[in-house]
Formats: sequence, structure tokens, C-alpha cells
Amino acid sequence: MTGQLVSDEPTTAVLSGVALAKEIRAGVTTTAAALAEAGIPPRLAVVVATDDESTAWYVRSIANAAAKTGIRCDVVDLGADAKPDRIRTELAALSADPTVHGIMLQTPLPGGASVEDLAASIAPDKDVDGANPVSLGRLSAGLPAFVPATAAAVLELLDHYEVPLAGRRAVVVGRSNVVGKPAAQLLLRRDATVTVCHRYTRDLAAHTRPAEILVVAVGRAGLIGAEHVSPGAVVIDVGTNPTADGGLVGDVDAAAVTGSVAGLTPVPGGVGPVTTALLLRHTVESASRSTA
Amino acid sequence: MTGQLVSDEPTTAVLSGVALAKEIRAGVTTTAAALAEAGIPPRLAVVVATDDESTAWYVRSIANAAAKTGIRCDVVDLGADAKPDRIRTELAALSADPTVHGIMLQTPLPGGASVEDLAASIAPDKDVDGANPVSLGRLSAGLPAFVPATAAAVLELLDHYEVPLAGRRAVVVGRSNVVGKPAAQLLLRRDATVTVCHRYTRDLAAHTRPAEILVVAVGRAGLIGAEHVSPGAVVIDVGTNPTADGGLVGDVDAAAVTGSVAGLTPVPGGVGPVTTALLLRHTVESASRSTA
Repeated sequence: MTGQLVSDEPTTAVLSGVALAKEIRAGVTTTAAALAEAGIPPRLAVVVATDDESTAWYVRSIANAAAKTGIRCDVVDLGADAKPDRIRTELAALSADPTVHGIMLQTPLPGGASVEDLAASIAPDKDVDGANPVSLGRLSAGLPAFVPATAAAVLELLDHYEVPLAGRRAVVVGRSNVVGKPAAQLLLRRDATVTVCHRYTRDLAAHTRPAEILVVAVGRAGLIGAEHVSPGAVVIDVGTNPTADGGLVGDVDAAAVTGSVAGLTPVPGGVGPVTTALLLRHTVESASRSTA
Repeated sequence: MTGQLVSDEPTTAVLSGVALAKEIRAGVTTTAAALAEAGIPPRLAVVVATDDESTAWYVRSIANAAAKTGIRCDVVDLGADAKPDRIRTELAALSADPTVHGIMLQTPLPGGASVEDLAASIAPDKDVDGANPVSLGRLSAGLPAFVPATAAAVLELLDHYEVPLAGRRAVVVGRSNVVGKPAAQLLLRRDATVTVCHRYTRDLAAHTRPAEILVVAVGRAGLIGAEHVSPGAVVIDVGTNPTADGGLVGDVDAAAVTGSVAGLTPVPGGVGPVTTALLLRHTVESASRSTA
């Protein structure tokens, strides 16, 4: 089942990720049950070394979604003062444990620890959030690899809403290792002409306005307004910025661009739920391969 | 010593790589002598599995340059019918040999063999041409890694001629794993706003014309003409296309763009000699680390 995107109407389609996430989770549930029956209960380990509130919230949401789909999820809390070596040892132990199929390392990390450095201790075949530089390299080289779930969710949404990519202008705002760079690689692999913008980009609007596909992953509320977009654009908003009243908004000023673009993912309810569902899908994929 | 680029004159500066390459080789010669004195004679191994003429020419030029700088260069010719497993075994043996400091795998490879797949057998610390996907991943993630020498040469030339990169529009035409993609990563790391174009890009000139830095690495003579560039652009021509009379031309129609751009690398004598010099520099860097 794919969604519908009517781009020649003057309205802006809301590209919800809720139904897509549900569809992905349904597939995961079926696979997880089959794996459990075969004696391989799928298992995800989430390593945490922070007392950051929003991280705790995100980890709980992963654990809840995992439970509902029949995936065991262990949250390994090493404490906010964990040393890099302690984290590395834990990741290596989980990598060596044949009953663990997916491993994630949450950020933020204790002072001085680099996620790229530590994630190199996650076995690539269990690296369900594509954090090990090996995974990023294999992705760049066009080899099979787990893609960071958020970047994968961007492409999954574009495909769900049947947005053509080949030969079209895609602009990615943000160049993080977890979203911007891998999303750019995936769009390039799908034959889009890809531009990556960031904090040093001069005249951001001049770069984003020609975009047919605009992916925004910066973490700044209201960064993208009406002057940054063109009619016909499909906008994927990866930002999740907490508001004063306890809500969540994206990087795109949704009210300002609605009516000016063909489609926009909502926040919350856009990229987020698809990301979580894909982490679970990656975990059962890893478990399925472990039986082969 | 840096070169000079006078961009506000109506002429086009010829951004030669010859002097820069000589400068790099001089540094390599000094380091190689010191290493030899310390009992670590630097050694490069080039693995070949083709009878392609231009590969043979390129390998001879590397071997000659290596000899002149005091680097031992072994050409390991496995024959044009070598099986992937044989190549993999050779790369693993060279990786394990402590007297070898740099390893390159030449293309083309025998039918069915993928360079990305085979290059994974090159130890990352000896991967002087950045061919192992691990090297590309570490580069993307901002970690130390050997960069493919051709992509590194692009940046080396831009720095030599003091071309500012941060915040400027860079356009890379071509998305190969050996040039286009790593050059885009390097430009992005240096805070340029980077666009990658390729065969599916619609209206190439519309994308390349705004470029302040244009890197062309496709392998098609005459691809870039006057209509693709703007005054003030610095153009790095990575293409090397043989001509009917036994010469070599780039992807840029040099006659057509001369006078229309601020600077252009010649072919031959631009990126090529710098690439070879950087391979040698990477080899002594690897050897230097092996002494630590």
C-alpha cells in the first residue's frame, strides 16, 4: 500500500508517517513471531550513557514499540559518567553475544566520547542504526549495509508517497553523520542531483528554493519558511524541537509553507514513527540473517 | 610555497600541478631517506590483474616516481584471468607483511570482481589510495583515514592556489567512489555548499553555471564547455581521455572555457602528477606510523 500525493492541487498534502510505520511494524511482528518460533527470539540492545530527558523518552518509545512487535529490547544504562573504554567494552560484548541481533548507542555521550569512534565497536551486521563508520562507508560505496534509521525513514516516506527521485533536484539541509550525510548518499544512489547545505551556506533560500525534494535535518525550529520553498516541492522535516508548552515542532515553519509546497511531513507523526519502525525492521533483518 | 591565482583578470590562470607535485615529492624523498636510515625502507605494492594498456602506463609512472623518491615499489601482476579469491588472498598477505606500507589495487579487474568488495581486504592503515569502504566511511564520519589520492589531489590543488572553500558553491560532476564522492566529502568537510551531478542530472549547465568551484570527474572529453561555467569559477579537470593522436585531454573543453573562468587545471600536468605524488606521500606516512 502506498500513500497518495496530489501535487498539482493548491493544497499541501500532509505526508504522515503513522500509517506507514504501522504497516512496517505489522511486517516486523510477523517476522519476529516466525523467528521466535524458529528458536531465534529477536533482541535489540540500546546502550545509554546519559541522564538526558529526551534521550530517555526516545529510548522508552523504542522499547515500547519493540515490545509490541515481539522484539526483546534491553536498555543497557552505563550511567552519565561512563568512561569511553567502558562503553567500548559493552558494545564489543553485545557484538559477540549471539543472542543479540541489534545494537544501538544513544547520544549524547559523556564528555570527550565521540560516537563515530565508539560506534566502530558495534559489529557491522548488528549495527541497526548504521552508526559504525564501516556502515557509512559501505553505504557510500554502494555495498549492502544498515543505513542510519532516520535517513532510511526519509527515503521510505518518499517512496511511500511515490515521489520520483531520479534526475530531480534534492537539497539536504544539515550534514550530520546520522541524517544529512547518509540521506544525501541515499538520494544520490537513487539518481537525484543532490546539494548539501549547512551553517556555512550563504543565502540558504537561494539553494533550497529550486529543490524538488527538500530534506531538513538541522534542529532549529522555524529554519525553513515560505521564502525557502517552491510550489511542487516535497518537504521532509526531520527536525524535532521541543516547545515551551511541552510539544514538538520541526525545522520547517509548517504554517508558513502550507499552501506553498506539494507535500510536507508533520512533526510529530512524520519521520519519527517511521524511524522507530525501521530500527525494529533492521533488528529482525539481522536476526533473520543469523539463522542462515 | 603556494601558487598564485589572479581571479580578477580577464585571463584564465593555468593551475598547473607540476610544481606542486615536485614540492610534494621533495618532502617524500626526505622522509623516505630518514625512514630507510631508521631501518624502515618504505615500500608500496601495486596489485594488477589486467592487461589494459593505460593501466600498465599508469603503474609504470607510479613505479618510476616511487623509485625517484626512494620508495620501493613492487608491481604484483596476477594476470588478467585472476580469480577474485586469488586477488583477495594477495591483498591479505600484503596487509599482513610488516615490510609493506602501502597497497593499491588497480582497475579494471577481471570480469565479475568488484573493487569495493576486494579492497575491503586491504588493511585500512596501508590503504594509501583510500579504496577500502572503511576508509570512505571514516572520511565521511570525519575520522582520520587515507583519502583516495585523486580526490586528495583536487583539494591539494585548491589549497595550493589558495582558493577559498568555506561557504562557497562547489559543484562536483561525477559520483565515482574514487573521485566524485570523496571529493564531495572533502569539500563538504571544508564547509563548501556541495552539489553532486551525474548522468541523470537534468540540465547540467544550470547546475554547474553557479559553481564557484567546479570539479569534473566523468571521463568524457568536451563535456564541459563555455555554457557550463561562469567568470570567477575555478575549474579542476580530473578527466583523462586519450586522443586519436596519442595525447590526453580532460573533460573540460579548455579552449572553449579559457577566458571565461578564473582558473583551470591543465590535462596533462594538472591533477595527475599531484595524485601520484600524494600516493607516495601516503606511503611514507604509513611507514612513519609503523615505526611509532
